[in-house]
Amino acid sequence: VGVSRTSSPELLVELERGRPLAAQLEQGLRDGVRSGRLAPGTVLPSTRTLAHELGVSRGVVVAAYAQLGAEGYLVVRQGAPVRVARAGASPMEEREPPLQAAPRYNLRPDVADYASFPRREWLVSLRAAVHKASDEQLGYGDARGAEQLRVTLAAYVGRSRGVDARPARLHVTVGFAAGLSAVCAALRARGARRIAIEDPGHLTVRRLVEHTGLELVPVPVDEHGLRVEELPDVDIVLVTPAHHFPTTAVLSPARRTELLARDVVVLEDDVDAEFRYDRSPVGALQGLAPERVVYLGSASRTLAPALRLGWSVLPSWLAEDVRTEVERTIIAPPVLDQLALAHFVERGELDRHLRRMRLHYRRRRDVLVRALDAQLPQLHVEGVAAGLHVVARLPDAVDERAVLEAARARRIALGGLGEHAIRPAGGGALLLGFARSPEPTLRAGIRELSRAIDEVSDIFA
Amino acid sequence: VGVSRTSSPELLVELERGRPLAAQLEQGLRDGVRSGRLAPGTVLPSTRTLAHELGVSRGVVVAAYAQLGAEGYLVVRQGAPVRVARAGASPMEEREPPLQAAPRYNLRPDVADYASFPRREWLVSLRAAVHKASDEQLGYGDARGAEQLRVTLAAYVGRSRGVDARPARLHVTVGFAAGLSAVCAALRARGARRIAIEDPGHLTVRRLVEHTGLELVPVPVDEHGLRVEELPDVDIVLVTPAHHFPTTAVLSPARRTELLARDVVVLEDDVDAEFRYDRSPVGALQGLAPERVVYLGSASRTLAPALRLGWSVLPSWLAEDVRTEVERTIIAPPVLDQLALAHFVERGELDRHLRRMRLHYRRRRDVLVRALDAQLPQLHVEGVAAGLHVVARLPDAVDERAVLEAARARRIALGGLGEHAIRPAGGGALLLGFARSPEPTLRAGIRELSRAIDEVSDIFA
Repeated sequence: VGVSRTSSPELLVELERGRPLAAQLEQGLRDGVRSGRLAPGTVLPSTRTLAHELGVSRGVVVAAYAQLGAEGYLVVRQGAPVRVARAGASPMEEREPPLQAAPRYNLRPDVADYASFPRREWLVSLRAAVHKASDEQLGYGDARGAEQLRVTLAAYVGRSRGVDARPARLHVTVGFAAGLSAVCAALRARGARRIAIEDPGHLTVRRLVEHTGLELVPVPVDEHGLRVEELPDVDIVLVTPAHHFPTTAVLSPARRTELLARDVVVLEDDVDAEFRYDRSPVGALQGLAPERVVYLGSASRTLAPALRLGWSVLPSWLAEDVRTEVERTIIAPPVLDQLALAHFVERGELDRHLRRMRLHYRRRRDVLVRALDAQLPQLHVEGVAAGLHVVARLPDAVDERAVLEAARARRIALGGLGEHAIRPAGGGALLLGFARSPEPTLRAGIRELSRAIDEVSDIFA
Repeated sequence: VGVSRTSSPELLVELERGRPLAAQLEQGLRDGVRSGRLAPGTVLPSTRTLAHELGVSRGVVVAAYAQLGAEGYLVVRQGAPVRVARAGASPMEEREPPLQAAPRYNLRPDVADYASFPRREWLVSLRAAVHKASDEQLGYGDARGAEQLRVTLAAYVGRSRGVDARPARLHVTVGFAAGLSAVCAALRARGARRIAIEDPGHLTVRRLVEHTGLELVPVPVDEHGLRVEELPDVDIVLVTPAHHFPTTAVLSPARRTELLARDVVVLEDDVDAEFRYDRSPVGALQGLAPERVVYLGSASRTLAPALRLGWSVLPSWLAEDVRTEVERTIIAPPVLDQLALAHFVERGELDRHLRRMRLHYRRRRDVLVRALDAQLPQLHVEGVAAGLHVVARLPDAVDERAVLEAARARRIALGGLGEHAIRPAGGGALLLGFARSPEPTLRAGIRELSRAIDEVSDIFA
């Protein structure tokens, strides 16, 4: 009490007036380094800045830095910023455990080819966004997203997917995930309790839905998509009509009609609609019943998951509730990224990128399918017409889990149908992605996979 | 059945083989424009692209575009892309209701000066990020955030705020909000039920906490911060030790000690710690008890809310739970923005920006305080030493609500102490922010405010 203290906002060391300042500064820095609070490598403020901030003469700071340099706590070199030394800090950061060994053959079914991300074009759009954003847009902004992007995306999903989208009811979200969570929360607040999900279905999506507090009701999927006739009494149905993961089924016209005749809210996950090779795209379900269907899309597969950009198109009766939900949680994507995406789509870059990627993926798919024909003729390959993976059905005598284990031991990353099923399905199948690996790796990966399958089949032979 | 269909992924119009293709294409486009699905202004694919995608001759597309151009549905001009016409679409997007009239005098207490956002320097960091990100980082990545940023921020909060941060336990979050929500969810899963919050306290933060499902227990605040002696039996306490909003109180040393002696988890909202003018910064509470305190920071006040970048430093016993929570919800900031922030901090740009902003805000504060002294001597001004607003206590006879109404009618944006209180507080006070307005606007705003107060005081005179 009554003691005058001083400190700097860049380097938290407290000095009391009336006691030797250099000694206090030395001690404060020494304690900081010893305790690990000043991490090895940390750049300290310049002597001029620190002296100014602390209200002491520059000589005091120079002396303290020099002393600690001599003691080995700091690295003090002419013309370079002063840093905390690498050695000497005692309770060092525990080294993070090494990540899982990277796969040698990446045949994961649920990844895109990030190496093809259009960095140069995206940077052009980011630059435009930084220049174009208004000061007001740098604040919290509209919870639904920047108006410019909402207008652009509404036109995009209207034209490319047949979605009936009004900008006022299109929300920009932190990926597909945040959109789904906000919609489920809003429906729950309106009394929804049970949600039907596809079985099998993507494990990550199932975990997301579990997290919403809704009761999950699995409904089987066959080659025509969700078996709507087996749909029990639920409030919500989450479906992937364009391209089901993992089976690749497309929801048939009859099932679409049947589903829309039911008294449920449909959440349409429009994943992979952009990637079709030999067949025509199927319009979004939402276009048939905009007041019954919530449309959910994202840039994760078309550009990159790391952008964390998604969008939801909401029925008029639900839009305000979801908006309130998002305003409360303040979970929205950064505005500069939103403006960048608007610029990117408006300039036709997304269409151009997708045109390129369809050709690119189609080539990789052809290589994978040919390699499977040659090396593993005993597998029945399905789902080659669209998406970024194929389904390779195993002969009845071969156990899916055993194959997956053997393949992973050979550092092949891949998926299994059973891994995404809630209730035991019929036969086993491998999910083989062709997006991520160059063509020679695809060929070598399938060769290696055939060895893994041989190994396992021998046990049963 | 049996009919061969074709369509394009860029423009969803379905054609059946065997019927006149040009007529079908015309009809499909006409329907799209009429229904509003093809929004006015939408750019259509080039004739070459569309013909290729549909597998028809280019002449078919040229003819259809020309016909619809003649009918006024499309705008077809030599050398320009074909667009949907502005007029003609029938169920036009309802115009969004005009936003609230922008205030003439922005004295909001909870905004920063977005006009000072360092666009040029941020763009340099964005460019570095786009070049530096690995392909792997463009995937879903580490739920805690990019390692590079976690290391950089751990060093930054260690040096500037005295936080004991290990990169493995520092999470990068979608603003302060997502960090707070994830931590509350993880604590709730561990059995926490009751959370104490400051009363008064920021309304937005209170709404966020309400949303977590925890029971809110308001605890009063005085000039020494939270009245710890009145803290009832709770599991969690959310506090702003460095600078309480809206009172500007700093949690006193005695109260800090008392708080850490209680058997509670403390959530430390370190808002505005960077902006202090006449007094030394106060170290973070977290440094005193890293296993007891969760530290929450963000770039919203130092850079811009629109970046949606925040961070949490977690006790070792809680880190895994929060990580699992975030992995489930997949709510994380885009990796490019994370790498940009890492670059920005490492290059000393954040320190430089804050040095500039401290001077900038200090000048604005001085202008505001002088104007209040001159124009409204009857108000008692507090909290001038730090933060981006001051508290101006009203004389007992003057009603806070009446003043706020009169001021807002004169298009002054400002805050009131009572608006952030759960239980009725003592006297009324205005919250006047100086961050957002240039100096002449500050002076004019206070002149206008004095007129509003005169108007209201007369009623009671």
